[in-house]
Amino acid sequence: MVVEDMRDERVAVVGGGVIGLSVAWRLAESGYPVVLIDPSPTRGASWVAGGMLAPVTESWPGEEDVLALGAESLTQWPGFAQQLQPFGEIGLRTEGTLALALDSADVGTLDVLADHLHNLGREVDRLTGRQVRALEPTVGPKVRSGISVPGDLAVDNRNLLLALRQAAIGAGVQFVAERATAVRPGMVELGESFMDCSVAVIAAGAWSTGLHPALESVTRPVKGEILRLRTRHGTLPLPTRTIRAHVESRPVYLVPRADGELVLGATQHEVGYDEDVTVGGVRDLLSDAEQVLPGIAEYALTECAAGLRAGSKDNLPLIGWLEPGVLAATGHHRNGLLLAPATAAAVLAILRDGAAPDYARAADPSRFRTTQGRTR
Amino acid sequence: MVVEDMRDERVAVVGGGVIGLSVAWRLAESGYPVVLIDPSPTRGASWVAGGMLAPVTESWPGEEDVLALGAESLTQWPGFAQQLQPFGEIGLRTEGTLALALDSADVGTLDVLADHLHNLGREVDRLTGRQVRALEPTVGPKVRSGISVPGDLAVDNRNLLLALRQAAIGAGVQFVAERATAVRPGMVELGESFMDCSVAVIAAGAWSTGLHPALESVTRPVKGEILRLRTRHGTLPLPTRTIRAHVESRPVYLVPRADGELVLGATQHEVGYDEDVTVGGVRDLLSDAEQVLPGIAEYALTECAAGLRAGSKDNLPLIGWLEPGVLAATGHHRNGLLLAPATAAAVLAILRDGAAPDYARAADPSRFRTTQGRTR
Repeated sequence: MVVEDMRDERVAVVGGGVIGLSVAWRLAESGYPVVLIDPSPTRGASWVAGGMLAPVTESWPGEEDVLALGAESLTQWPGFAQQLQPFGEIGLRTEGTLALALDSADVGTLDVLADHLHNLGREVDRLTGRQVRALEPTVGPKVRSGISVPGDLAVDNRNLLLALRQAAIGAGVQFVAERATAVRPGMVELGESFMDCSVAVIAAGAWSTGLHPALESVTRPVKGEILRLRTRHGTLPLPTRTIRAHVESRPVYLVPRADGELVLGATQHEVGYDEDVTVGGVRDLLSDAEQVLPGIAEYALTECAAGLRAGSKDNLPLIGWLEPGVLAATGHHRNGLLLAPATAAAVLAILRDGAAPDYARAADPSRFRTTQGRTR
Repeated sequence: MVVEDMRDERVAVVGGGVIGLSVAWRLAESGYPVVLIDPSPTRGASWVAGGMLAPVTESWPGEEDVLALGAESLTQWPGFAQQLQPFGEIGLRTEGTLALALDSADVGTLDVLADHLHNLGREVDRLTGRQVRALEPTVGPKVRSGISVPGDLAVDNRNLLLALRQAAIGAGVQFVAERATAVRPGMVELGESFMDCSVAVIAAGAWSTGLHPALESVTRPVKGEILRLRTRHGTLPLPTRTIRAHVESRPVYLVPRADGELVLGATQHEVGYDEDVTVGGVRDLLSDAEQVLPGIAEYALTECAAGLRAGSKDNLPLIGWLEPGVLAATGHHRNGLLLAPATAAAVLAILRDGAAPDYARAADPSRFRTTQGRTR
C-alpha cells in the first residue's frame, strides 16, 4: 500500500505506554505533527513490567517469527538507548541472562530451548548447577543446570518511560489526557467528543481490542502480576544478570536494577480485564523465586502490581494498516519493551515510505483478515 | 500519689495512635485542655493493626495480669464504642473467635490454652475439625481441631482511629503536627522548640522508648507485618468469625470486615526500628493463612504493611507516673486497640482522682524502678 506523505497532517497516537510513546517520538522527530492520547501516559502495562529485553531466552520452537522480530529489535536497542540518553538514565544492562532449571521437568524445558537455539545457529553455553553458582553465587542449591545467554539486555522500564515522555515532549508531541473510546478513519472518538486526524495509530495495548472492530477477536488481555523487591542492610547482594527459571513448570524471572531493586515476575493469566493482584499469584512468585535465590527472603517487598498485556493469536504483534487511515501497533504481549524500537521504526517506514520494513512483514494485521474482510 | 486537680492546666499527649487519641479524647471531654502532638496522627502501628479485641484467645499461662487487664478493657469496649457512634461507624463485630490447630504441635498449643482458660474458670468449647467446618465452611481440611471463644470482639481499626480523631476534635483537643523528641516535667521538646504543659502523657508506642530515660531499657520495638486481602467476584465468602491459628508453631490471625476485607497478620520480629515488609514475612503469612482458609488464594492482595508495637518486659503496658508531671501510657504491645478504653479511663482516674483504678495497678511503671531510681 502506498500512502502520500502526510507530514503536514496530524497523526493521533492512541496509548502512552512504551509503544505509543516510542511511535509518537519517532514520528514527531521525523517531522509529523503528533498528538498522543492517554488519560495517564507511562502508567500502563509497561510501567508494571520487568524490563527484560530477551528475545533469545523467550523464544520457543514454532515461534521463529517472534524471535526474528525480537532479535531485530534487540539490534536496534543500543542506538535507541543512545538517542534517549539526553532525556534520562534508562539503566540499560548488558550483563545478559541466565536461564535456570530446578526439577527434571524444568531441565527438559531447558533442553528444548537449548536445542532450538542450537538449530537456529545461536551459540548457547550449557552450565551445571556448580557452574551457575560460580557465575552467580547467590543462586540456591536446588538449581540443577542452566544456560547462559550473554546477548540479552535489560532496561529500567520506569526510567525508560519517563525518558520517552521527555523525548516526545522535546520533539513536539502534544499530550491529550483523555480516554479514547473508538478509532475510525479520520478521527479518534473521546467519549462524547472526538479528534480529527489524518492517521490514527492504535497503540493502546490490552485496551486496543475495543477501539476498532478489526481487533475484536484478534487481541486479548493477558494479566501479569509483578513484585518489586529491594535489598536491605545485611542482605545478600543482587544477582548481576537477569535470571529466568522454570519452577514446577511455572516461569519466573528476576531482573536486577542498579539501585538495589529486584523485579520479580510474572504470572500469566487470561482472565479478562482484571487487574487485581491475587494471593495465589504472589504466593507462587515468592516461593518460586526463593527456590532460585533463597537470599531474597530477607529483602524488602516494596510493591505488588498487575498489568494487562495484549496477547495475539500467534504471539506476534500487529503492526500495519487495519484500514486506510487506521494503523495498529499493538498485540506485543510480553515483548512491548523489547519491540518498541523496531515497532516505532516500522510505523515510521509505513507512513513515510509506504511500506513496512521486511522484518515487520510477518506482523502485518492482514494475516488475520478473511476474504470477507472480517478478522478470522 | 495525690495530684492536684489540673483541669485548668494543659495536658500534652505525645502520640496519635489509638492510645494517645483515646487518652486525649477522654481527658478533653472531662474538661482538661489537651494538646495532642504527632506528625501524622492515626498513622502508626494501630493503623497497620488487625483489630482483634481478643484477651482470652491471646492469653497464656503466667500472664494472668495481662488477661485480667484485657478482660476489664473488653467489658469497657461496648460503652466506649457506643460513645464513639456519633463520630463514625467503627465496625464492632461480636461474632467471636475460633482458635484453630493444624499439626499435632499446634493441637498441643491449643490444649495448653484450653486448660489454662478452664483453670481460670472460663468456659471454652473444644471443637473437632468437622465441628469447626460446620461453623465456618471455608476452613480447610488440614485444620484438626479448635476452640470457640464467643466473647472476643473485633473492630475496624482504621475506622476506629478516624472516629477517635473526630471525637477528640469535637471535645476540643488541639492537634500539633510535630515530632516530639523528648519529654521532661513541664515540657515536651519538639526538636529545636518546646511546648509547656502541666502534665505530659507519653503514648507514642514503639517511639516512646527514646522520649524519657525511664523507658529506655523497659520498652522495645516489635515489628509486625500485616496483609490486607479482599474478596473478589466469584471467590469464597469471608469467614464470619475472627480466626486464629498456629501453623508450624507460627501464630496467624484472619479478621473479617463488613466491606469484604480480610486482615491477615501478624509476624513478630524484634529487629529494632525496621518497618520494611519482607519477602519471608509475606511468604509465611500467605502460606500459613492458605492452610487455614484455602479459598483466599483467589482473593485480591491489596496491601502489605509493617508496624512497630511497643513491647515491654512482662507484656503488660506501662500506665502511670514516670516522675511528677510525666505520665506513661505505652508498652501495649499487641493489645493497644483492646486496652485503649481501660488505659484512657486509668489515665483520667490518675489525673482526676490521684490514683489508678485497681485493674491498672499491675501496669504501674514503678514495677521496673530500682531502689536507685533507675529502671531495672
